[in-house]
This record gives sequence, structure tokens and C-alpha cells, in this order.
Amino acid sequence: MAQRAGEQRQAPGPKEKVLTLDSMNPCVQRVEYAVRGPIVARALELEQELQQGVKKPFSEVVRANIGDAQAMGQKPITFLRQVLALCVNPNLLHSANFPVDAKTRAERILQACGGHSLGAYSISSGIQLIREDVAQYIQRRDGGIPADPSNIFLSTGASDAIVTVLKLLVAGEGRLRTGVLIPIPQYPLYSAALAELDAVQVDYYLDEERAWALDVAELRRALRQARDHCCPRALCVINPGNPTGQVQTRECIEAVIRFAFEERLFLLADEVYQDNVYAEGSQFHSFKKVLTEMGSPYAEQQELASFHSASKGYMGECGFRGGYVEVVNMDPAVKQQMLKLVSVRLCPPVPGQALLDLVVNPPAPSDPSFAQFQAERQTVLAELAAKAKLTEQVFNAAPGIHCNPVQGAMYSFPRVELPPRAVQRAQELGMAPDMFFCLRLLEETGICVVPGSGFGQREGTYHFRMTILPPMEKLRPLLEKLSHFHAKFTQEYS
Amino acid sequence: MAQRAGEQRQAPGPKEKVLTLDSMNPCVQRVEYAVRGPIVARALELEQELQQGVKKPFSEVVRANIGDAQAMGQKPITFLRQVLALCVNPNLLHSANFPVDAKTRAERILQACGGHSLGAYSISSGIQLIREDVAQYIQRRDGGIPADPSNIFLSTGASDAIVTVLKLLVAGEGRLRTGVLIPIPQYPLYSAALAELDAVQVDYYLDEERAWALDVAELRRALRQARDHCCPRALCVINPGNPTGQVQTRECIEAVIRFAFEERLFLLADEVYQDNVYAEGSQFHSFKKVLTEMGSPYAEQQELASFHSASKGYMGECGFRGGYVEVVNMDPAVKQQMLKLVSVRLCPPVPGQALLDLVVNPPAPSDPSFAQFQAERQTVLAELAAKAKLTEQVFNAAPGIHCNPVQGAMYSFPRVELPPRAVQRAQELGMAPDMFFCLRLLEETGICVVPGSGFGQREGTYHFRMTILPPMEKLRPLLEKLSHFHAKFTQEYS
Repeated sequence: MAQRAGEQRQAPGPKEKVLTLDSMNPCVQRVEYAVRGPIVARALELEQELQQGVKKPFSEVVRANIGDAQAMGQKPITFLRQVLALCVNPNLLHSANFPVDAKTRAERILQACGGHSLGAYSISSGIQLIREDVAQYIQRRDGGIPADPSNIFLSTGASDAIVTVLKLLVAGEGRLRTGVLIPIPQYPLYSAALAELDAVQVDYYLDEERAWALDVAELRRALRQARDHCCPRALCVINPGNPTGQVQTRECIEAVIRFAFEERLFLLADEVYQDNVYAEGSQFHSFKKVLTEMGSPYAEQQELASFHSASKGYMGECGFRGGYVEVVNMDPAVKQQMLKLVSVRLCPPVPGQALLDLVVNPPAPSDPSFAQFQAERQTVLAELAAKAKLTEQVFNAAPGIHCNPVQGAMYSFPRVELPPRAVQRAQELGMAPDMFFCLRLLEETGICVVPGSGFGQREGTYHFRMTILPPMEKLRPLLEKLSHFHAKFTQEYS
Repeated sequence: MAQRAGEQRQAPGPKEKVLTLDSMNPCVQRVEYAVRGPIVARALELEQELQQGVKKPFSEVVRANIGDAQAMGQKPITFLRQVLALCVNPNLLHSANFPVDAKTRAERILQACGGHSLGAYSISSGIQLIREDVAQYIQRRDGGIPADPSNIFLSTGASDAIVTVLKLLVAGEGRLRTGVLIPIPQYPLYSAALAELDAVQVDYYLDEERAWALDVAELRRALRQARDHCCPRALCVINPGNPTGQVQTRECIEAVIRFAFEERLFLLADEVYQDNVYAEGSQFHSFKKVLTEMGSPYAEQQELASFHSASKGYMGECGFRGGYVEVVNMDPAVKQQMLKLVSVRLCPPVPGQALLDLVVNPPAPSDPSFAQFQAERQTVLAELAAKAKLTEQVFNAAPGIHCNPVQGAMYSFPRVELPPRAVQRAQELGMAPDMFFCLRLLEETGICVVPGSGFGQREGTYHFRMTILPPMEKLRPLLEKLSHFHAKFTQEYS
């Protein structure tokens, strides 16, 4: 850099770069993604400092910022990895060390691959056999309501499919530009994708006082106001909620569907946590099922895209980037356009497709692997349920922290009271007050959580998102450490 | 549909769909991607008809439309799949059936993964260790010129990285909209991505008479004309060429770099076929190496993004979607923006990252797996070289077919003479003449190739792209069948 500065003093100086902050895509500049934002960059630095022997008030950084189960020590489900290893290296099909059903499943998947190999491209919407298995999974899940494999598009994680559907929806200029209603708090993929696509983000607020319930009156308010400056054409719902952990009631889903139908909104249902429901009395209802059971005109007219993923649930196979979208009542000509669009990227990763197949089509009770598979699955889900309960209890026992029940998903999103002097100090630093809190928390305890401002929240309230994924023996001390830090922080700025 | 039509006659009729061809994203509608276009859809139908026992003048469909080596029967490289199976299922690390270096490599990769598992997300630019290995690969490839791991971004195949870099470059409205120079013929990812991003495609023609050479005078012509209606800011080069198979000389690359520097163009070098060079006298020179060896001011100022992939080369592991981009002389603030942008999609598939690691860091001569690895690699590359030569010979022996040498990559792109009556017939059908030819070829022989119009070509010339990937014993009859069909087709329309 010193050399470059020196050169600049001579003639002819270096040319300005072609690609600079001034000249680059302004939409990309507006993108924000808090889950991997500055706080996580700082966490990485702290880990490196610890490795280099720098003394800190903590011995390890705990990454409770992202729903990454295996990074927090959760073991992969044996059956999934057995089948995948057989698919990756079919020589192992001759080995005596694999159960026979794992071999059968691997052979079935390989038969459906080009050249019988995970190394060939699949068709762009995903391997036909796997899309059929996904359709059957949906049919079982929804009590027999049929699903059509030609409505299933496999994807590179659910994120990929969500962005693809949003991409189709974006059109118009000025006041006619597509607006998309998203919940606040939201998972920031939505705000990021809308910024990148230069669409209009329309916020509707979840009701924290009623356990983050979705209220149609609030949808109506948001829609009415948005119509002044854009053309709202889609409504995103995240159920179970991320970061908010609520599970929607069937009545609520029906009301949302009626609203979307009346107001002519394309529905995007982010249902990637459909297997992560813990609270007694809570139950997952898919939008597809509710919409179909509501009958005419909803069943045959309301457009819907429902997303699912292999990254969450009980398996937490984030690294494989497996996911899918089911489109319902989509105009066939638009579906053709969607197929064309995804074909440009050739295909989703085939190992991720294979993994998704095992998730939607797990061992049957008569299979040799069933007992172990079922035991592993139940252990993970039971632990998550216990951790969800514990998180809520410990936080709510702390003065100044209020935590709604974690009915589902993998996160708590507690509200924290921050003293006015802390808010003022943050403003002096040009920082959101909860970012200031979370950064101080990280520096002093090694706990990495994401400030609520990264997800959106009502003005003047402060939150953070913390995963419930750390192992049980670590989670309780972690929650207590965090609560103590909040007390100390409150005292410091009072 | 009958029911729907019935309903429409009653009041209140069904509402029009929210998302239709009229209301959807017009940029997405403009996207075209011939490699998986209508001809491939028809090939799929023909395969299904054959399976159902429909009689055809051929017994199988040969998919020579896409560079998908393993789908055409190429066997995966043993070492790669051994290490990957160990990574997927680490219980196998105790098995006696794997060479010790495969185990060491698997352990090394797992150590670098979150929770020591392929199932955890990696950081968004890719696993640090693998980016270091990529940097060392580049350094070895380029005769010692250093590469910085912080300039390496792993990706979901090279396509993903190419779109990311293009996305950064797109800005401005009207005459200030970003223009991007791309070769004609081109790999249609470029035209598709530019259409989707609503950037301006600026065509420069490769010189078919000089074996698809890139001529700077033609670049200058294209640039001058483009400046009337857009703001050209980037230049894409594909070397070795896809679909055209040429390998650029060092002199040519130097001239391109000087041109880009003078005209202030960001360079995108698509170098995914860098290991696929067959012709005697041809050699791959990376843009990074040439640019660096040209010294000041190019070495420290010319902005470059160079793309590579695990899908091509000798391994052909398309399904894993492994790839990377190295950015050179990129503004650090823009690099930060790029990092933020890729973080929204969390991370590239981790199995693909692991596979890429093995490709850039293959067994060393002292490793137990070296001999077998080297033998397998050489066999594939020697066969590809022989098939490249054979393709050129057979096509050039056929009247009315002219095939440039396939110096590298995986495709021939022969020019075919089509009789005026065939051209007229195609126009009556509303079809590009070479699309008409390729569809007839498919229907009558089962050979699936992509019409030249999908890649772009000089007005009035007709081509097709055919991969050289079918196994040797199939390739010669295939080439002869195709040549005979052309003769018959010519006679039919003369």
C-alpha cells in the first residue's frame, strides 16, 4: 500500500479502479445480512486471538448466532451418512459394514443419477425420483392431499429457492414496483434478497405481546400504507418463526390465506422448521394443507410457494445445501419460466439432493435401520425441546429480559431492556443499541448472538437472537452468563 | 382445466393469477439457455418414449449437449471418492479398506470443518484451509507467482461465482447502464446472466477462419459501437474456449490485457477448462500469470476475476458443484461487499468444497495413492485428446461440415452448410435453421447436440456444439452417423 501511495505522486498515476464503491451495483450495497455480519467477523477474530494465546475473559467463543446444529456438536444421523457414503463411493456396496437397507437406498438413488454417479449433473429441477419422493412426503405430511412432482423444484438450500421465486415476482417501475410483505422481525435473507432485486420491502409487525402472533389487521395496515408507493404482490410468512420461534395456529393460517386471496397476493410460506415444534399444544400446519382443506376458491386458485430444507429439522445437514420448493396453483407458463431460470445454474448439488431424499423418505418400521434412526431422531428432537424450555425459563428469571415461549424453530428472541445511558453511548458510537450490547457481550463473555436490529423490531425495543443449539451441559451456564452480563451491563449504564 | 373453464362462466369467476407471463419479471423472460433448452426437453421425451417401447429409428438417445463426463460413462477418480466417503462417514476412518493418505486427507479436511463435519456451514467465502490450498495451487500453476487466500471465494460451481462478479458490476440507467463484452460464440450462461441482471450484452466475434482466434481489432470495434448506447465496463474471455475449443496464445492474452487496461475494463477470465488442453503446441496461460509477468502498470492495477471449477478437467465432478473465483487487484471495499453478498446464501456446498480441495491438492509422488491417481488422470486426459482429434478428422472428412481443431475444452463447434430450402423451411416453422437441423438430427438418430444459434454465430452461418465425451467406441459411429445425416439432410432439401 505504501508503494501504491508513492506511485500516485508520480505521473502518470495509476488509473482509478473500474469497480469501486461509487461505481458498483447500488442494490448490492444496500444488502445487509446480520446473521453473518460484523459481529460474526469479530467472533472470528477473537477465535484467532485465542488460538494465538491472547488472554481473554473467556476460553472459547460460542457461536450462538446461526442455526448450525453440527457446528455446535450435534452428531449426524447414522443412516443418512451411511447411505451417502455408499453413494459417494459405490465400491463400499460390497462391504459387510453397512446395513442392507442403506445399500438398497444407495443403489436406488444411484440408479436415478446420470451415469449412476453423484458426479453427473441432474436435470435442473432435481432428480425425478427424488422429486417423486418429496411429493409423497408432502402427501403423507398433509394427510393424503396429493402433491405433483412437477410442482417440486429441488434447490441449493431453501435460500436458493426463495430467491428464485422472489426473482419471478419482481417487476414494474416507480409506484408500480413489486412490493413484498415480510414479517418484522424477519429472517434477513428476505430483506437482503429484496434489496438485491430492488423490490420494495413492506414490513408487517408480529405481536410480541401475544407470543409473536401474526395479526391480519396488521397485514391490512401494512398493505394499505404500501399501496401508496408500490405494488404489493407477495406475502412472506415464516412458520415456525425465525427468529421468533412462534408456531402459527390453524385459524391464523386460514385468516392469512383469506387475506392473501382477497388482496391478490402470492404466498411464500417458509416452512423450513416444520419438524421443529416443541411446545405442548403447538402443531405444524402446512399452508398447502390448510389452503386445500379450505376448499373453493382457495384450493384451486391461491398461488403458493412452500419451502423446506435439509439444513434444519433433526438432521441439521446445513453443509449439504439441500432444499426444495413446492409451487401450488402456479401459472403453467410461469412454471416453465422458472424451470428455464434454474436451468442456467445447471442443477442443485447432487449430494444435497440425495440427502434430501433420505430426509423425506426415512427408514420404514420394517427396515433394519429403523430403530437406530428413530432413536437418534427422537434424541435430537427431545433435547431441542428441553433446550427451548430451559432457554425461556432462564431468560424470564432474569430482570430486564423477556422471552416468549420458543414453540418451534431453533432460536430464542428475547427482548432486553437497555438503560438510556447505554442507548446514548451506542448512538455516540454510531451503532444500534442492541449491536452495542451484543458486541460488549461478545468481548466479555465470548458469546456470539445477533442483535435484534438485524432482524427488525419495533422502534425503541431491543432484542437479540440466540440459537438453542449449544449442548445441554453448556447451554445452562451460557444462559446464566448472558443474564449476568445483562445485569452487569444495566448496572454499568444506570 | 375443464372445471376451471366451467367456473369462468359463472359469477364470480376465478381471479386472474397474480403471477403470469404479463406480470412476471421481464428480465427473467428474456433469459435463454440453449444447453438445456427445448432440444434437451425433446431428448428427455424421446427417452421416455423409448422406455415405453415406442419404436424409433435409434435405440438410445446420446446426450452430447452438455459437458457432463460422468453421465457419459467416465468413472470417478478413485482417490477423490475415497477421501469424500471418509469425510461423509468418518466411521470409515477405522476401516482397513482405505489407503492411509486418503485417511490423512479426510482428517485434514474434517479438522477444518465446523464441528468436524461436512454437515456444518462453512464461512461464506469457503473453508479457510481449502482457500489456502487453492492459493497454493494457483501459485504452483503460475510458476511461483503468489496468490492470496483472501482473494479466493469458493462457489457453487463456477457459474455461481461468475454471476456474483457480474452482479457487482451492474449499475447505471439508460446509456450509462453497464455493458459487458462477451465472445460470440459464447457459453450462454453469460447472455442469460446479463439478461437476468438487465445489463447490456456487447458481442465481439471470434474469428472462425483463424481457429476462433480473439482479435483485438474486433474487441475495439465492438467497444466503440457499444459506447453509443451503454457503458462498457467488463470484458469476458473464455479460455480454453466454450463452445469453440480454441486455446489462446500468450501474445493474444497480453494484447487483451493491454486493451482492457487502456479501455478501463474489468476482466473476467473463464478458465474452467485449464486442465483440458490437447493440441500439440497449445498451452494454457492463465490471465493472472500473464498479467503479473507483464509488470507495471498491469500487474498492480488491472482488475481481474479468474474462474475455475471441479466440474471439468479430468475429474468431471459436475454434480458436486465445486468452484472458485480468484479476484486480482479488486478494490478492498468492493471485496468486502462481495463477501457480504455471498454471505446471504450462507455457503457453497461443503462436499463440493472438499472435492475441490482434492483437485487443487492431489496426491504427491510420495503418497501411496499417487500412482493410481496419476494413471487414472492420464487415461482420461489421453482419451479426451484422442477424441478431440478424431472429432476434427471425421467432421472435416464430411462434405459441408467444417470443424476447427479442438485444441482444448470438451466440445467441437463445427460449421454446417445448410441448403437454402432447409433454411426456408426452418423460417416457415419460425425456427433458427440450425435448430431445425438439430431437431431433425435428434428425431432421426437420437443424437442430442445444441444448435449454434444458442451460442451466437455470424449471421448466415450455422453450427452445432457437440461434446467429445462419449466413450471412444461410441464416438466414431456417432460422428459418422451425424455426418451421414447431414449428407442426407442436404440432399433432401437440395
